[in-house]
Amino acid sequence: MSSVDKQLEDLKATIEDELPSGISVSDVKYEGPELVVYTRDPKDFASDGDLIRKLASKLRKRITVRPDPDVLMDVEEAREKIRDVIPDDAGVTDLDFHADTGEVVIEAEKPGMVIGRHGSTLRDITKAIGWTPEVVRTPPIESSTVSNVRNFLKQEREERRDILERVGRQIHREEMADDQWVRITTLGCCREVGRASFIISTAETRVLVDCGDKPGAEGEVPYLQVPEAAPLNSIDAVVLTHAHLDHSALIPLLFKYGYDGPIYCTEPTRDLMGLLTLDYLDVAAKEGRTPPYDSEMVREAIKHCIPLEYGDVTDIAPDVKLTFHNAGHILGSAVSHFHIGDGLYNVAFSGDIHYEDTRLFNGAVNDFPRVETLVLESTYGGRNDYQTDQADSERNLLDIINDTHEQGGKVVIPAFAVGRSQEIMLVLEEAMRSGKIPRMPVHLDGMIWEATAIHTTYPEYLRDDLRDRIFHDDENPFLAEEFNHIDAGEDERQDVADGDPAIILSTSGMVTGGPIMSWLRHLGPDPDSTLVFVGYQAQGTLGRRIQNGWDEIPMNERGGRGGGRGNTLSLNMDVETVDGFSGHADRQGLENFVKTMNPRPEKVLCVHGDERSVQDLSSALYHDYNMRTFAPKNLETFRFK
Amino acid sequence: MSSVDKQLEDLKATIEDELPSGISVSDVKYEGPELVVYTRDPKDFASDGDLIRKLASKLRKRITVRPDPDVLMDVEEAREKIRDVIPDDAGVTDLDFHADTGEVVIEAEKPGMVIGRHGSTLRDITKAIGWTPEVVRTPPIESSTVSNVRNFLKQEREERRDILERVGRQIHREEMADDQWVRITTLGCCREVGRASFIISTAETRVLVDCGDKPGAEGEVPYLQVPEAAPLNSIDAVVLTHAHLDHSALIPLLFKYGYDGPIYCTEPTRDLMGLLTLDYLDVAAKEGRTPPYDSEMVREAIKHCIPLEYGDVTDIAPDVKLTFHNAGHILGSAVSHFHIGDGLYNVAFSGDIHYEDTRLFNGAVNDFPRVETLVLESTYGGRNDYQTDQADSERNLLDIINDTHEQGGKVVIPAFAVGRSQEIMLVLEEAMRSGKIPRMPVHLDGMIWEATAIHTTYPEYLRDDLRDRIFHDDENPFLAEEFNHIDAGEDERQDVADGDPAIILSTSGMVTGGPIMSWLRHLGPDPDSTLVFVGYQAQGTLGRRIQNGWDEIPMNERGGRGGGRGNTLSLNMDVETVDGFSGHADRQGLENFVKTMNPRPEKVLCVHGDERSVQDLSSALYHDYNMRTFAPKNLETFRFK
Repeated sequence: MSSVDKQLEDLKATIEDELPSGISVSDVKYEGPELVVYTRDPKDFASDGDLIRKLASKLRKRITVRPDPDVLMDVEEAREKIRDVIPDDAGVTDLDFHADTGEVVIEAEKPGMVIGRHGSTLRDITKAIGWTPEVVRTPPIESSTVSNVRNFLKQEREERRDILERVGRQIHREEMADDQWVRITTLGCCREVGRASFIISTAETRVLVDCGDKPGAEGEVPYLQVPEAAPLNSIDAVVLTHAHLDHSALIPLLFKYGYDGPIYCTEPTRDLMGLLTLDYLDVAAKEGRTPPYDSEMVREAIKHCIPLEYGDVTDIAPDVKLTFHNAGHILGSAVSHFHIGDGLYNVAFSGDIHYEDTRLFNGAVNDFPRVETLVLESTYGGRNDYQTDQADSERNLLDIINDTHEQGGKVVIPAFAVGRSQEIMLVLEEAMRSGKIPRMPVHLDGMIWEATAIHTTYPEYLRDDLRDRIFHDDENPFLAEEFNHIDAGEDERQDVADGDPAIILSTSGMVTGGPIMSWLRHLGPDPDSTLVFVGYQAQGTLGRRIQNGWDEIPMNERGGRGGGRGNTLSLNMDVETVDGFSGHADRQGLENFVKTMNPRPEKVLCVHGDERSVQDLSSALYHDYNMRTFAPKNLETFRFK
Repeated sequence: MSSVDKQLEDLKATIEDELPSGISVSDVKYEGPELVVYTRDPKDFASDGDLIRKLASKLRKRITVRPDPDVLMDVEEAREKIRDVIPDDAGVTDLDFHADTGEVVIEAEKPGMVIGRHGSTLRDITKAIGWTPEVVRTPPIESSTVSNVRNFLKQEREERRDILERVGRQIHREEMADDQWVRITTLGCCREVGRASFIISTAETRVLVDCGDKPGAEGEVPYLQVPEAAPLNSIDAVVLTHAHLDHSALIPLLFKYGYDGPIYCTEPTRDLMGLLTLDYLDVAAKEGRTPPYDSEMVREAIKHCIPLEYGDVTDIAPDVKLTFHNAGHILGSAVSHFHIGDGLYNVAFSGDIHYEDTRLFNGAVNDFPRVETLVLESTYGGRNDYQTDQADSERNLLDIINDTHEQGGKVVIPAFAVGRSQEIMLVLEEAMRSGKIPRMPVHLDGMIWEATAIHTTYPEYLRDDLRDRIFHDDENPFLAEEFNHIDAGEDERQDVADGDPAIILSTSGMVTGGPIMSWLRHLGPDPDSTLVFVGYQAQGTLGRRIQNGWDEIPMNERGGRGGGRGNTLSLNMDVETVDGFSGHADRQGLENFVKTMNPRPEKVLCVHGDERSVQDLSSALYHDYNMRTFAPKNLETFRFK
């Protein structure tokens, strides 16, 4: 008998001891980090609201209770009873019964009403039908990404259970190593922005944190071939801090290279990773590059995701516990806290963070039970990297919109699909609602609409008051009638360009391709319109060149569009830049994050910034807060314990 | 055709172009780092003394010329002709013909006379017989180690050639890696003394430097199981700086774990490693521990040794050149200089060093064509680790000997077999020759005699004037008649103890076992005799306890010896400590090594010292010489380029 089987047998005996007589345990299994308890008496189990919590606390495990398949109520009967128990206002849109696990997935517009106070409605459901309910939100805006991911996972359910069981047994294996040490190896994003990737290793375990690409440098990928990372199939776990491509693009590649283990991330990160990596393949194909993997690998990645919520303390290896905390950067972005060994060491990876609250998100969490080392992003760590206050930036943006509106023009804003677009949408919605700018259509082009739909699917990940508005007041600002999805292509764009004053938000954010190119063709020659940059324009991008004053823009004829004009576009529209909307903490934000961090870390590794930024930040934190700081290079290994 | 075969074909063509007409090339092969050129005209080849040098310089390779086996002269005829060519004074003791390679190994008491001025006699031999002569020294003192190693290598000649050809093809493989970087990973000896071990890695190559044990902590071995070192069979080369067990003990273990590549070291290091690792197995067995490998693995290690001389620049991988330089620490000890890539980076490992000249050795070399990083031993790096000047120490030692002699006692000196014993022997020999102490017998017990025999086999590795005395004046001080090898066991020791004043040098150096225990039994109770410590006594050893004043010493009865006395020995002899004979540079020596180093390194990693020593030295070098210094921990990786 393997040590894991022995362990499960012991757990089963302990659970039986703890349970009131009359509640049986037919099987006990690991599924990923969770312990699943099968019972022939699910209704009795559900009747004591505290039972599962007591068991979890006693066993120090996350516990899920499922009915033994033998005792399941007939599906049609169960369906009716569920409708009886759940209030109509909950807006149930789908019920999906899985006889193999005794779960019923309930998709509802208002998941809170399905859950009930402290889970009371869920318990009522189990008491009524025996099946275990699982609740997901019906996207308020239809999202093809979310529905594709959900359908795919439904379809792959059986394989996924096998994966989860394998992962679970791996997590709960007996520790074999005699040595105790904790190391971090840098595989990318040191003294550079992009290709975030780290290995955390102990004598027992290896965990890969992030695996991104480097924008503008396709060949420069994380150093996965070095022995610290190879062979990939010996890595225990992958942790993804957020979905931006410079952290996620090469996650699917791991599966091509033999990795077959779990990816821990939040649920929105999983969906956004799906959206962004598929788009990454698409862009590579369009630009004539050979993508490093195909869409099958994206599906593999999604199949291996184990979603965690902020605050869940999760065993991901015999000697590593992971907890995600809100990072304030994009939807689902997570500061990742690792507790290693039994009190041996604690290290937090900031991922990308925004320290202050924004309209979209609460500011990054920097409060931990313990932390000795912080691995800190430094994108704006340079000595002069202070950003304009967002309130000033907003006023500035609204002034530009008002001016342009007065002269009858349109405002075109190149924006990243994920994060900054939604922030700007919230600014515009409020400004129109409060009369600071006239009501006018806001057209969303490229992936922005889809990204927004994903945001509305996961309001728990948004800023408190925004979430509450969506939850309780039914005032979802993203559903404002001014927002229009450009979904009819070039004709629709032509109509918008020929029509009344409007605002256009379009990808790509750095004017390197995508529908923004069309908008430049349509509106670039119009001296009454304004092009407003609200995000960072990297060296070498067309966006940066336009900021620098280019007004003759070489254009590729794409499919004969462009009305017979030549290959050069004269840019007559106003060009403005409004900073202050970054998803990254600025220098002050980074310092504040560290200064107010609880507890204060002993060591800080400054990463994910260009050479000057990491050096500046590292040296400032050392001098001002008297902590040991480092500006690592790629391919270095630090030993902490 | 493999790229190496293609390369060899091109080299053959180039050589044929360069050679005068009439000299044929029948084959060209790699053997380890050397290019071996087979010819049907070995005599013609030999007649132009410059030919090989010109070829080597043209091809930038080390070249050996061998006769095609078809054209070899009959062995008996060749034997006679050799006797004709070599002067009788050379003292040839053996001729060993190898028809497979066309080599004849000539063992002679005076190898210099076989070689002749600039190799003229060797060339005369080839011109006379066609065979390629190779010369080795007849040990002036018979050494079972040297003769065992030589006989073993003779016997394994065929397998060894296969190994060398495989290694050669590996060294000269085509470079495959696109990336360029240079890293060092610390596998041991950081913030501690013992278990020296490092990995140098590039994108193309991995080299292991040293693999020692940690005295007094058997379980603490180098971290060979971490991914930077595993799997061992993917390591390109092992470099051994010197034979002491804290650098060499686990070299044979590598072969048990699947390593099958070359070990680069000097010839004396190879022989001493054989002696010391076999003794290591012996001691483990005697102490009832399971040795980590058996003697077969020592033989494997010796079979895989590729001996290099000081100053030889040797390709050990497509992108790594190794050069050894005298380290002044023990016989054959080497500062190991690595030139990586084509001018990419240079790093020197000091190994253990002695900076000043000693009686035995020239001081360590610190002059290099280029060096950016120095990995420096720090055994005596602490702020107070200054040693007494050796001249004072010698006076002190001689005073003690004179006093003891006057009162009719014996002087007992516990000493390490390799290095310090020979240094003391030179002190004593000179003191008696010059009348500073009376002539009296010096008894050598334990491995000291054998280690001394190995020293006299390789006088080229000794200090200039000592070497010259042995070479030219036939005044080998180790052959002085006062030196007596204790080779008749306990009876002989009893006779010595009962006899006239004498000096005894005996292992083990820290009184942890070996014949020194017998000497304590015999002479410990004698108040007229003196016990003199001349080497470092580690915490926890009996030597340290005696230094600290213990005079009641628990003794194990071993085989009934000890004359019926009880289990406790009363120590009545005087106990003295004379420092200043260390094989290690003291703090001043380490600073001088760095200060006068040419060129001055940019970075210094202080290793191989306890925590305080590495921190002190690292901080002093930083402040005094304004270089970047580090006190690494085990299991860290530094990236240099």
